[in-house]
Amino acid sequence: MSTEAVEVTCVVQAFADCWNRHDMDAFAELFAPEAEFVNVVGLWWKGRAEIKGAHEFTHRTLFRSSTLELEEVAVRFPAPLLALARCRWKLSGHVTPEGEPLPPRHGVLLNVLRREGDRWLIVDSQNTDIIEGVVSRPQ
Amino acid sequence: MSTEAVEVTCVVQAFADCWNRHDMDAFAELFAPEAEFVNVVGLWWKGRAEIKGAHEFTHRTLFRSSTLELEEVAVRFPAPLLALARCRWKLSGHVTPEGEPLPPRHGVLLNVLRREGDRWLIVDSQNTDIIEGVVSRPQ
Repeated sequence: MSTEAVEVTCVVQAFADCWNRHDMDAFAELFAPEAEFVNVVGLWWKGRAEIKGAHEFTHRTLFRSSTLELEEVAVRFPAPLLALARCRWKLSGHVTPEGEPLPPRHGVLLNVLRREGDRWLIVDSQNTDIIEGVVSRPQ
Repeated sequence: MSTEAVEVTCVVQAFADCWNRHDMDAFAELFAPEAEFVNVVGLWWKGRAEIKGAHEFTHRTLFRSSTLELEEVAVRFPAPLLALARCRWKLSGHVTPEGEPLPPRHGVLLNVLRREGDRWLIVDSQNTDIIEGVVSRPQ
């Protein structure tokens, strides 16, 4: 793996590490100020402040004791200073809005990262739940 | 809107136009050979041939009479020759695997495009269904 691919992978790992510490200050610092984020139900957050606020809310509620594990990270560089990092993930320890435990779920997260000086910042994220056993979701 | 943003928007519109003609030859030509695509249930297709084959299958079945409408296209340029185009969409006219009609559904599609000579090619797509009324999908 190239040095650049290692650097990008470490940022994606930091995404999971901040999630698992529920440290949304550090989480937000992974993103560029103008970053956007679409979550697994299609909510579209614009800018680091919205991304941070939305995750602060879910990490006080649904995800307050959750653990995010990355199962695979694939990195590509479609242009200079620009990386696409896609990973499959497993989320466990999350609860319903009423606090009831839920079984693990899986998904696919795409992060787009841009090199800024000596750092890679996330400029875009889009997340999709994996629904087993179907080719699409007609329902 | 800049000339580049218009060009990128036209490629995204061509995605919908090819879908609506169910012309998967033309659809596939919008993608770079090494493009990847994650669909709304987290299936991860790698390369133009896999993307084409998967869409040929669904356009013979679930989507054979479906119509994809783009409701909003937002374009950003996080690096030279590289565009992020995100759109909300509405799908109607799709059916169950048994052929029964289904109500319209909505989603958010991210396309990453790279300038190649005088064209913009899609190098990555990730799609997410919109689930109304929730902040995540704990179930």
